[in-house]
Amino acid sequence: MDTAALTAVRRLASERVTGLVVVDQAGRPTRVLPATQVLRLGLPRYCVDDPTLARVIDEAHADVFFRELADRTLSDALPRSAGELPVVDQDATVLEIAALMARTGCPLVPVVDSRGVMTGAVTLPTLLDWLLPQ
Amino acid sequence: MDTAALTAVRRLASERVTGLVVVDQAGRPTRVLPATQVLRLGLPRYCVDDPTLARVIDEAHADVFFRELADRTLSDALPRSAGELPVVDQDATVLEIAALMARTGCPLVPVVDSRGVMTGAVTLPTLLDWLLPQ
Repeated sequence: MDTAALTAVRRLASERVTGLVVVDQAGRPTRVLPATQVLRLGLPRYCVDDPTLARVIDEAHADVFFRELADRTLSDALPRSAGELPVVDQDATVLEIAALMARTGCPLVPVVDSRGVMTGAVTLPTLLDWLLPQ
Repeated sequence: MDTAALTAVRRLASERVTGLVVVDQAGRPTRVLPATQVLRLGLPRYCVDDPTLARVIDEAHADVFFRELADRTLSDALPRSAGELPVVDQDATVLEIAALMARTGCPLVPVVDSRGVMTGAVTLPTLLDWLLPQ
């Protein structure tokens, strides 16, 4: 949560990952951000909610929003409430993970141990490789 | 819509794309499926909606659902209603596309001409390259 929001967005862009997991000091996931939701960090709320407003903003100023992210941490930039946290324990089945991804629209699911500490993550491409008949 | 659902899911898995665009005979987008929503094609509805049910299904039978997709077309497998179709015209601004992706959770937005025919598409990684300050 102390990471600069711009650093998080750049990481997502440069590594072409499916999303980001935010962990607390103990390594427990507190947020899972699918790539599309990371866009919200750099966009004013009114712009996401109303397509007409997004359209009228001068194109030349589009990157101003993202430039401002350099001065804000994830904690500043993320909305307070987050909905269902897509996390599974180490006994989770493939179907359970698939259902969770479909329900939350999140293509990245961290796996946690009994203390809630992240031990790994499953991504959608990996899951599809498991699920699809050979 | 006449494509076998299994073919569509395999294409998504093998090419590691961000989603699929379904077009009609005239080349007009009728559905845009983010990768996570493609999972719904192979999962029973009760399984997506209720995590407990997904968990009790025998792991050995997990790929049965996906094997059955070989006999179904996208038209058979997709739900009838689809919500907002994330499509933009050729005059769309970068911010407009970013807002659309954030709102719909869809990392893939087809671009259409004045007749509604798809002429290209913008993906989230490309969009981030445009938006992020150098």
